[in-house]
Amino acid sequence: MKKILLPILFLSLLPVFGQSSVESDSEKIAAIYDMALTNGKSYDWLDYLSNGIGGRLSGSYSAQRAVDYTKKELDSLGLDKVWLQEVMVPKWTRGAREYAYIETIPGSSTPINICALGGSVATPEGGTKAEVIEVHGLDELEKLGEEKIKGKIVFFNRPMDATKIHTFKAYGGAVDQRGNGAAEAAKYGAVGVLVRSMNLRIDEYPHAGGMYYGDISEDQKIPAAAISTKDAEYLSSVLKLQKDLKVYFKMNCETHPDVKSYNVIGEITGSQYPDEYIVVGGHLDSWDLGDGSHDDGAGCVQSMEVLRLFKEMGYKPKRSIRVVLFMNEENGLRGGLKYAEVAKEKSEDHIFALESDSGGFTPRGFTFHADATQLTKLQSWASLFAPYYLHIFQQGEGGADIGPLEGDGTVLAGLQPDSQRYFDYHHAATDTFDKINKRELELGGASMAALIYLVDKYGL
Amino acid sequence: MKKILLPILFLSLLPVFGQSSVESDSEKIAAIYDMALTNGKSYDWLDYLSNGIGGRLSGSYSAQRAVDYTKKELDSLGLDKVWLQEVMVPKWTRGAREYAYIETIPGSSTPINICALGGSVATPEGGTKAEVIEVHGLDELEKLGEEKIKGKIVFFNRPMDATKIHTFKAYGGAVDQRGNGAAEAAKYGAVGVLVRSMNLRIDEYPHAGGMYYGDISEDQKIPAAAISTKDAEYLSSVLKLQKDLKVYFKMNCETHPDVKSYNVIGEITGSQYPDEYIVVGGHLDSWDLGDGSHDDGAGCVQSMEVLRLFKEMGYKPKRSIRVVLFMNEENGLRGGLKYAEVAKEKSEDHIFALESDSGGFTPRGFTFHADATQLTKLQSWASLFAPYYLHIFQQGEGGADIGPLEGDGTVLAGLQPDSQRYFDYHHAATDTFDKINKRELELGGASMAALIYLVDKYGL
Repeated sequence: MKKILLPILFLSLLPVFGQSSVESDSEKIAAIYDMALTNGKSYDWLDYLSNGIGGRLSGSYSAQRAVDYTKKELDSLGLDKVWLQEVMVPKWTRGAREYAYIETIPGSSTPINICALGGSVATPEGGTKAEVIEVHGLDELEKLGEEKIKGKIVFFNRPMDATKIHTFKAYGGAVDQRGNGAAEAAKYGAVGVLVRSMNLRIDEYPHAGGMYYGDISEDQKIPAAAISTKDAEYLSSVLKLQKDLKVYFKMNCETHPDVKSYNVIGEITGSQYPDEYIVVGGHLDSWDLGDGSHDDGAGCVQSMEVLRLFKEMGYKPKRSIRVVLFMNEENGLRGGLKYAEVAKEKSEDHIFALESDSGGFTPRGFTFHADATQLTKLQSWASLFAPYYLHIFQQGEGGADIGPLEGDGTVLAGLQPDSQRYFDYHHAATDTFDKINKRELELGGASMAALIYLVDKYGL
Repeated sequence: MKKILLPILFLSLLPVFGQSSVESDSEKIAAIYDMALTNGKSYDWLDYLSNGIGGRLSGSYSAQRAVDYTKKELDSLGLDKVWLQEVMVPKWTRGAREYAYIETIPGSSTPINICALGGSVATPEGGTKAEVIEVHGLDELEKLGEEKIKGKIVFFNRPMDATKIHTFKAYGGAVDQRGNGAAEAAKYGAVGVLVRSMNLRIDEYPHAGGMYYGDISEDQKIPAAAISTKDAEYLSSVLKLQKDLKVYFKMNCETHPDVKSYNVIGEITGSQYPDEYIVVGGHLDSWDLGDGSHDDGAGCVQSMEVLRLFKEMGYKPKRSIRVVLFMNEENGLRGGLKYAEVAKEKSEDHIFALESDSGGFTPRGFTFHADATQLTKLQSWASLFAPYYLHIFQQGEGGADIGPLEGDGTVLAGLQPDSQRYFDYHHAATDTFDKINKRELELGGASMAALIYLVDKYGL
């Protein structure tokens, strides 16, 4: 009887062990959320990054202040290592604020709100004044041809598609105008471009963002500005009444030589597999019009919070967990490229990288760039997140900064917050700390910590 | 062969029909969302309700203006019937704004932000000044007893529990202090109560809300106020330093005789089953400090939008669909009671009632008060909502106004928006139109219309 009983006992204990392990995970995850919501640090950190420092354009003094501040805060957490990773970054400056108006009768002007797009050249000293031709996409340029475009300002006015429920899809469907509009319009002799802001709301704020001249020559480059959605609607309607109106705009932006900057990195070294790395991060730089609270101060402080929560709870990870605050996501991605380059040089085995760069809103889940086996494993954890209303566990994007880590089986993951409000603020003067809800921010950080905990515990 | 083939053919077509029907539903639902997001009316309606009219306390002129306005707007939609349903409602007025301070040294006062709770009596003409005893729950009163409470102001300071992910659970766990605190404290001879605002944030805004004296006599009633969370924290910390400090407060509120008001009702009469009713609604009254945008202007305009979308799309429902804007949810529920009473008198068969009264935030799904068979049917539709990121389809609350319709197999349903920000604004001066995101509001209305469409098409 004993010989038979033992294996039966053993077998009957298995599901208990299994269950106990699941319970222990859900208890651990509950403890993570509880601490994040009652004793979180991310909101205070973001308050300082946003209100104490502000917009953190690559190569600016503010970006350097953000490096110093976050390094100091990471130093205070008792991590195993904290260091700065040097990286050369582009330096583009806006200069004096842009100025623009519509002229329907010479001498009579109606101001419009614009901002230079990142990377644009300035207008000539006296500004640019020209007739305007409105288009709704890059493909219209070829149809219009040089005859109708030469000497004019091309006004790209295709709105983001409001019917896309995930607003990043609407962004993806409109942002080619911002990124490539100037380069394409220049080929037909345009003297400048105005691009409808990437904003689903109709409001007065121009939204910055990167633009690229591609392979056109230096003297072909034309100035490119974003125009607020409200003024885009206005300009479009006035153009219907008077085709030959002119727009004047003046921009003072400038591209300088690259400057030295840093990724900020902190690490808790793994107790069992110190050579397996898990990265959690966001980008420390931002555009300059707002204070970069949602893009991407939120992702930075949430990532810092993951390691702080582990330290605070006394959780000792098996694998090495790094927080990486990437520099220069917005106009160069140099930080992300540098981090991956160094990781490759050192043959570091990165099993997982998670980025938060979609705003500090209520987390809805995660997307994964993973193979089928990895995805199955990740999805098997979804039920642990159901009590926190996370429901997205699917194949998808990781994030720009961690993108260069792709390959060698590294799983890339992206936190997916609710996307409805993101483009109200994205790259605009409205991206400020008062748009952050403390609980939403904290729930995001807790969700990231919970996922990292599971990846560390079970591997991938 | 033919005899055998026919049933096989028939059977093999079944899944095709089934699928085709599903496709047609998903197309119809997509059309609903598209129209709501590109040609919606709810945001403009809410702008007027909030900014054009403002807070709509039962029995106030503003409440009557809201009745007139929504009636007029419903009249313009070409519904089959629009009418007002008379209902007598309580009339409580705040009077001149409350005034309160902490006195640590006679003559030296620190102002604190309070507001009278709805239904409270006023303080005496000269105000109430007394020592303060802090408690964290009703159960502490009995332990303290009359000796320690008599002649004092009882300060209920148990915070909402931040670890509850669904914030309504945190509200449910704290709101007994607001509802019953005064009635209980009065039994021990307290001269007034201050109740920590039902707010998860620390800020300066007191949050109104209903309180009830239960069966205590008229002369036992003591004034009850909400204190902002920031001042609650302050008062608590100062009390630790000086137990005998005093608080002064003055309130000018008054309960008047009931007055006549209305539920506003519109109907599209069913083409096949006109005697089966489906209700969609919210409550038109609000507290007076803000403009009631989230509570519950949002629910009203979303409900109106459901019927407008159907008319706009030319959808002719089989069953009779009513929008009901209930009066007096906040301090009496008279509108909800009246609607159910009349429905019962007329033996109207209400198969389904859906309420939106949890704010105009991104919709996450629905809860249902339904039997197992009904719930299974409702849950079978969940996948149709997945493209819109709705994921909650579970047993739960309907809403206060539709509660009295319970019974006879009526399914009660509640829209479940994301709850994180709701109590930042709930019943406070911060519940204003600028806190409404147009897309979030519209997604809620579209989700309600999609659900009503399915209930109408397939019954329950």
